[in-house]
Amino acid sequence: MKGARVVALSGGIGGAKLALGLYRVLPPHSLAVIVNTGDDFEHLGLTICPDIDTTLYTLAGLANPELGWGRRDETWSFMETLAVLGGPTWFRLGDRDLALHVERTQRLKTGEALSGIVEDLARRLGIAAVVLPVTDDPVRTQVHTPAGTLAFQDYFVRLRCEPALRSLSFAGAARAKLCAPARAALGAQALEAILLCPSNPYLSVDPMLAVPGLREAVRAAGVPVVAVSPIVAGRAIKGPTAKIMRELGLEPTPATIARHYEGLIDGLVVDRADAALVADLPCSACLTDTVMVTPADRERLAREALTFAATLRRSARA
Amino acid sequence: MKGARVVALSGGIGGAKLALGLYRVLPPHSLAVIVNTGDDFEHLGLTICPDIDTTLYTLAGLANPELGWGRRDETWSFMETLAVLGGPTWFRLGDRDLALHVERTQRLKTGEALSGIVEDLARRLGIAAVVLPVTDDPVRTQVHTPAGTLAFQDYFVRLRCEPALRSLSFAGAARAKLCAPARAALGAQALEAILLCPSNPYLSVDPMLAVPGLREAVRAAGVPVVAVSPIVAGRAIKGPTAKIMRELGLEPTPATIARHYEGLIDGLVVDRADAALVADLPCSACLTDTVMVTPADRERLAREALTFAATLRRSARA
Repeated sequence: MKGARVVALSGGIGGAKLALGLYRVLPPHSLAVIVNTGDDFEHLGLTICPDIDTTLYTLAGLANPELGWGRRDETWSFMETLAVLGGPTWFRLGDRDLALHVERTQRLKTGEALSGIVEDLARRLGIAAVVLPVTDDPVRTQVHTPAGTLAFQDYFVRLRCEPALRSLSFAGAARAKLCAPARAALGAQALEAILLCPSNPYLSVDPMLAVPGLREAVRAAGVPVVAVSPIVAGRAIKGPTAKIMRELGLEPTPATIARHYEGLIDGLVVDRADAALVADLPCSACLTDTVMVTPADRERLAREALTFAATLRRSARA
Repeated sequence: MKGARVVALSGGIGGAKLALGLYRVLPPHSLAVIVNTGDDFEHLGLTICPDIDTTLYTLAGLANPELGWGRRDETWSFMETLAVLGGPTWFRLGDRDLALHVERTQRLKTGEALSGIVEDLARRLGIAAVVLPVTDDPVRTQVHTPAGTLAFQDYFVRLRCEPALRSLSFAGAARAKLCAPARAALGAQALEAILLCPSNPYLSVDPMLAVPGLREAVRAAGVPVVAVSPIVAGRAIKGPTAKIMRELGLEPTPATIARHYEGLIDGLVVDRADAALVADLPCSACLTDTVMVTPADRERLAREALTFAATLRRSARA
């Protein structure tokens, strides 16, 4: 196995958009996506992995374009009935989506590793890329707010990120191990670049970096590491990144992102809207349009990020 | 609480038909149905109670008339997707049906008793009758065949009752307790009759009677106990009753049914097709049409069974 040419580290929706762009512009079986598991949680007796599922659905062409999460062609009979029966409805689970959670939970109960299950599910969904959890061990993001500590999905879905975020912790991360196929992907012969998708650095990428060995494996790969800034003109492309940065006392700029990833990345892809801020970056920059609206946007951004990484590789060799 | 006027002991589909007839001809809150739990099983991490669910759906007017099991207006997205993901599909679970299993399983995990959960679910489904498992403790019917022992649903659904049945056992029954609300229903002041629905005596009623205390509570109730024969002209109205009787070396006749319930019942409702066999019965008989095709059939049979029971009560007093 030569392994994938590109490894992407990704959270959920925002990251999966770029992962899909990479998937489309690269030859089949050239991409490995290592996905955040800090959002995973237990609900209705099921182990739910929102970021992994978003990645699977997006790469399989099954993502729901209207909702921005879950599956297309979804039905909601389960949820409607659960409401009648008095069950919890704050986390919406479509009937098709539910099959993934039930099947994965069953396989986890038999002792199978999450990474093996996800690799198999990706194959069954016809995805010609490797999709991997960062770790097979449970990592659970905890959000510390003035009103107390919240489990991630309580904060993110039930309370819609409304409580002020004081700090984050990643329960289980210190004891977690980088899963073997993720380690293999980062050490692969064929590897040319590592991309940090424009996911939330605090909520989506930090839980991954909290897993001992990931940061070291990324650096040891010896290939250019490029992040795409999730901040454009002081706002997040998607989700609460800017709000959280303000709550953490951080300026929502690409420079803050670059400093957050300092020592890990070689370059940052920055939106043209932030051209004036590029001088402040502690790393190389690539200016382009980073807001992905159409499928073509995703492919173009993927191509530009890969080209940028290739440039950094050449300059490193020079 | 005066309690219900009528208690029915019922298995699944065949029994639920008569339970619905009783429900329709009696005033609201006059019926308690005590249901077999020997068919219950664990599947996909869920505790599934097929007979209880058939009873709930039937009384709530939600039963699927085409399938004969499950819910009407059902969707099958979950099952379709589970097949794609490589999950087990031999036990078909509709999307709406699934909500009941998930919600019940969650409540069981919190330590709630099955009887309390089912009573609550019945209320939420708008059922003006009490629906109860015979016991809150797990009872699991085991089917002994020449090829070995099978869990009930393996035999009944996966193998479609094809293996020859040598004997049955009811794992857990000896240690199970008649649930408190079932005991209360059988001891209620208002109680006028106890009916054994035309369920399979071996597969559906025996697992209930294997629970210590049920037989005694039925007799101690001091009201007429009437069974409706599930055998008509040597055949079962529904399901494998006749096949099983032959495999057990029993003649498929109402007399065999009456002898099976000897000491428990005061009378047997027998189909007119078996009029010639009534002389062999060890108990009183009521001849009528017992095959329930239309909703009107169910109500008529329910009325006749209740009238028969009332007659037995009068004759006992005389």
